[in-house]
Amino acid sequence: MSAPTATHLDRHDTIRAVTYADGVLRLLDQRELPFTEAQVECRNAGDVAKAIRDLVVRGAPAIGIAAAWGVVLQAGLLDNAGHPISAVTLRSTFDTLNAARPTAVNLAWALARMRAALAATGGDPLTTLTVEARAIQDEDLAANRRMGEIGASFLGDGIGVLTHCNTGSLATAGFGTALGVIRAGYAGGRIAQVYAGETRPWLQGARLTMWELVRDAIPAQLIADSAASHLMKSGAVQWVIVGADRIAANGDTANKIGTYQLAISAKRHGVKFMVVAPWSTVDMATKGGDDIEIELRDPAELLSISGRRTVVDGADAWNPVFDVTPAELIDVIVTERGAIEKPFDRGLAKLAGAQG
Amino acid sequence: MSAPTATHLDRHDTIRAVTYADGVLRLLDQRELPFTEAQVECRNAGDVAKAIRDLVVRGAPAIGIAAAWGVVLQAGLLDNAGHPISAVTLRSTFDTLNAARPTAVNLAWALARMRAALAATGGDPLTTLTVEARAIQDEDLAANRRMGEIGASFLGDGIGVLTHCNTGSLATAGFGTALGVIRAGYAGGRIAQVYAGETRPWLQGARLTMWELVRDAIPAQLIADSAASHLMKSGAVQWVIVGADRIAANGDTANKIGTYQLAISAKRHGVKFMVVAPWSTVDMATKGGDDIEIELRDPAELLSISGRRTVVDGADAWNPVFDVTPAELIDVIVTERGAIEKPFDRGLAKLAGAQG
Repeated sequence: MSAPTATHLDRHDTIRAVTYADGVLRLLDQRELPFTEAQVECRNAGDVAKAIRDLVVRGAPAIGIAAAWGVVLQAGLLDNAGHPISAVTLRSTFDTLNAARPTAVNLAWALARMRAALAATGGDPLTTLTVEARAIQDEDLAANRRMGEIGASFLGDGIGVLTHCNTGSLATAGFGTALGVIRAGYAGGRIAQVYAGETRPWLQGARLTMWELVRDAIPAQLIADSAASHLMKSGAVQWVIVGADRIAANGDTANKIGTYQLAISAKRHGVKFMVVAPWSTVDMATKGGDDIEIELRDPAELLSISGRRTVVDGADAWNPVFDVTPAELIDVIVTERGAIEKPFDRGLAKLAGAQG
Repeated sequence: MSAPTATHLDRHDTIRAVTYADGVLRLLDQRELPFTEAQVECRNAGDVAKAIRDLVVRGAPAIGIAAAWGVVLQAGLLDNAGHPISAVTLRSTFDTLNAARPTAVNLAWALARMRAALAATGGDPLTTLTVEARAIQDEDLAANRRMGEIGASFLGDGIGVLTHCNTGSLATAGFGTALGVIRAGYAGGRIAQVYAGETRPWLQGARLTMWELVRDAIPAQLIADSAASHLMKSGAVQWVIVGADRIAANGDTANKIGTYQLAISAKRHGVKFMVVAPWSTVDMATKGGDDIEIELRDPAELLSISGRRTVVDGADAWNPVFDVTPAELIDVIVTERGAIEKPFDRGLAKLAGAQG
């Protein structure tokens, strides 16, 4: 196995969900995937807010990046019309974008960065905003590439890995988090075969991750979420590699429902378990998993598939969206600041102190 | 908690998938569930064979019972036409029915019973065949009622249980195996709440088990298969109750894919694990789980849902239909001959010797 060359890696990293050029933001329409690769063109902040609301773009980093470009679009329109660009003239723009997905932390974070850049500008505000949006996007991509490199270094040679949900180029500026480690690992010969769980009820694994893997020529097989333990028992996978929605100070990790189940099974079968997420996911104010509230969503999401009812009328469902994987079941947490092994509390505190 | 009265129990046991009366076999069309409760009427063995082939009727016991009635239907037609009823005149009938689902053990078993009854008859062959078909059906129902009683006796008071796939009235003469224990447990106040896993890829839990539970007024919630561990961690369930496709001499149990995962998780959370299956499922010639071959089915079953493609073209899938739960993860195996606890090899051998 050798370090992947840039050419190697690029073959397995062709997807960009968010691209800006010359006053137009193009978003890969994720509602249409995996069947149609359609672009939604946004020419003002309202278009971008609508695209975020309508789930054209999804994934916390990708949403933040799209919103940043939304500010640039609107600033460009002000400029073209001869209006000044300022916190005052862009106030409704910031408000509209911020309200598009109120609970998305990255969205508020990206907009705060844009606001701060505007406030601190000493030159042309449109240039300042454009540079800042580009920086937000480039930094995310660089962080993902870095996580890919760090994460892949833990893997063996020609192994099998299992992932869950979608943590790929579609959810980020590109490359992905857990899927970025898989891209890097495959390009470097460390990974030979990828398995992706369907990820009911939204089927992100089936619809999005499999699309990315097929598109980027990485050998992959879809499995039913409930086949993971049987797969591990067969010896086909050596690592489970997943993303995270929130990482507590002790390493307990909230992620898509089903992650906990994979971790329990991995422990039983001697399969290693890796969490890959940007440092912004680490929440040092949350002590442990018990402090993380799990969102329960509409039972209707389980009672239909692709808009078709599958369950008898009058039936109820229990639909938690996330679960918590306790730190004891995790082998390594990979962030762009570095990898953390046990004891996680000490390692996380160290990285938080070093650059926090 | 009190022993369920017959009236209590009947309220929660209203479904019959296979009913014979006056020369007509009525099959509840399981392809149309849970949306339409349609009956397919069979008037000859060819109708029955077609219904088995087309999955109008499913579940090993239910298929065997339907086939037995198929012989009766054809014998009645011979009788009406003034032809003799014999092994010779019914040969093509037996062959047609036997070929309808070549791998179904219960189908061959039921037809062998019908053949033997015909060979041994001292009276009117049509009456003999009718009595035998009725006996096959009644014995299955009685076995399920007995398993329900035995299984329920292990449960606590007002507990939550989780089941997988469909092991109910639809798959049997009525009442069900694992779902029979749930019916008995709920009627007796031992169970307060049932959770059913969707059971991808065929969704038997979502489509069939939830239909049975709603229809029979048993409080139930559907969960994604991947939410089971999070559910167990919440403390909502005290028992997992599942069926079996094959039980080896050491207690290792093959069942629907996903069962193994539930057992691993149950062990971690101190949740008890019960397997419920007719004695015919016990295969003393199979020493352990490693000797059970697991059927891999067409990847296409995972690439579409309800006939709609969900995954990108060119994608592959790994689709094992069953997995093996090792005996160490099982607390009790319930058959109509009695309950078996550890060590299973000794308990199973004893029951095999006693009545085998």
